Amino acid sequence: MWLQETIQLRPKGRGFHLITPEILQQLPGLSRVRRGLCHFFLQHTSASLAINENADPDVRSDLESFVNRLAPEDAPYFLHTTEGPDDMPAHIKAVLIGGELTLPVTDGRLNLGTWQGVYLCEHRDRGGSRRIIATIQGEGDA
Amino acid sequence: MWLQETIQLRPKGRGFHLITPEILQQLPGLSRVRRGLCHFFLQHTSASLAINENADPDVRSDLESFVNRLAPEDAPYFLHTTEGPDDMPAHIKAVLIGGELTLPVTDGRLNLGTWQGVYLCEHRDRGGSRRIIATIQGEGDA
Amino acid sequence: MWLQETIQLRPKGRGFHLITPEILQQLPGLSRVRRGLCHFFLQHTSASLAINENADPDVRSDLESFVNRLAPEDAPYFLHTTEGPDDMPAHIKAVLIGGELTLPVTDGRLNLGTWQGVYLCEHRDRGGSRRIIATIQGEGDA
Repeated sequence: MWLQETIQLRPKGRGFHLITPEILQQLPGLSRVRRGLCHFFLQHTSASLAINENADPDVRSDLESFVNRLAPEDAPYFLHTTEGPDDMPAHIKAVLIGGELTLPVTDGRLNLGTWQGVYLCEHRDRGGSRRIIATIQGEGDA
Repeated sequence: MWLQETIQLRPKGRGFHLITPEILQQLPGLSRVRRGLCHFFLQHTSASLAINENADPDVRSDLESFVNRLAPEDAPYFLHTTEGPDDMPAHIKAVLIGGELTLPVTDGRLNLGTWQGVYLCEHRDRGGSRRIIATIQGEGDA
Repeated sequence: MWLQETIQLRPKGRGFHLITPEILQQLPGLSRVRRGLCHFFLQHTSASLAINENADPDVRSDLESFVNRLAPEDAPYFLHTTEGPDDMPAHIKAVLIGGELTLPVTDGRLNLGTWQGVYLCEHRDRGGSRRIIATIQGEGDA
């Protein structure tokens, strides 16, 4: 059983955003998978996907503070500067965090830990709507 | 052919740990897969999975030293501090390194390079037992 | 439908290299997959695979500059130094960026965004030829 869907995310400001509900809402077919995997692929080079804590929003705020210190804007050695000061740091963050996730599916649901959620990490000031290709495979009849 | 197993790891101290044997011991079904993939998903937000050198233990020690300098405890801008000074750095390291791996399976074995092993990167001082959901798929009759 | 191939990359100097054409040339079977996934696994511990911008080469140059500042050679606390000053930083970069990718396949092609390409991130001065295990699965008859 294979499903492949395009998920379109609403535009988000720069920062780390919990998107588990927004993703699941666009994947009704997931409920029919008894045992399998769901792969998410972000078709962009200046945003990331990650898994982390779904509870305290301060975790997401601290992550944003951290990556801004890790890859600051206007580093004097940057050559790729024509698309704005937030662009090259965004590419760096995207390479470090990564833009794809594979998650286990069990009995029609993402088999996440209690405190886990899916993050869109938006590294541009105005990244616009982001697109994810979701590919689900597994044994059916959940 | 689909297999899905829960792997429970013994508690480990903070640091980078080679867990290839501990994982394989809990996946007897792997030997029946001729050609496929094995996915490991850590159900936690303050530890990571990675692939790196399986030989010199100094590599794992240097990695621990590096990440502690990269994401130091008690950064003055952290807001998420109630769970202890090792907690927010643990979330940061988990997001950067990641908590899931997909590995090729060939003739009943993980098809790793000669010097590669699977690491559990324990970012908490006392993280306790960690749980991995392993999902194996492939062509059978190894 | 399962395919598993070994891809051998030509030796590359230290830096970030766009390898999409070099990979695809060695995967003729991909064109027969209508809907599926392609997994790339690098069998080495001092190089990485990543997805990022395929257009301006300055992005790749800035990424190399960034990771060299992030994990500098000759850090005084490194213990693993016998394989040369570029070795331990290479392991660190490999753990942070990661050595495997899963990409969606649609109608016989990798379903990448317009500006996305596959990178080999070579972290050694002379890493030699690198080997990737490619595993393709999906529904056939593209």
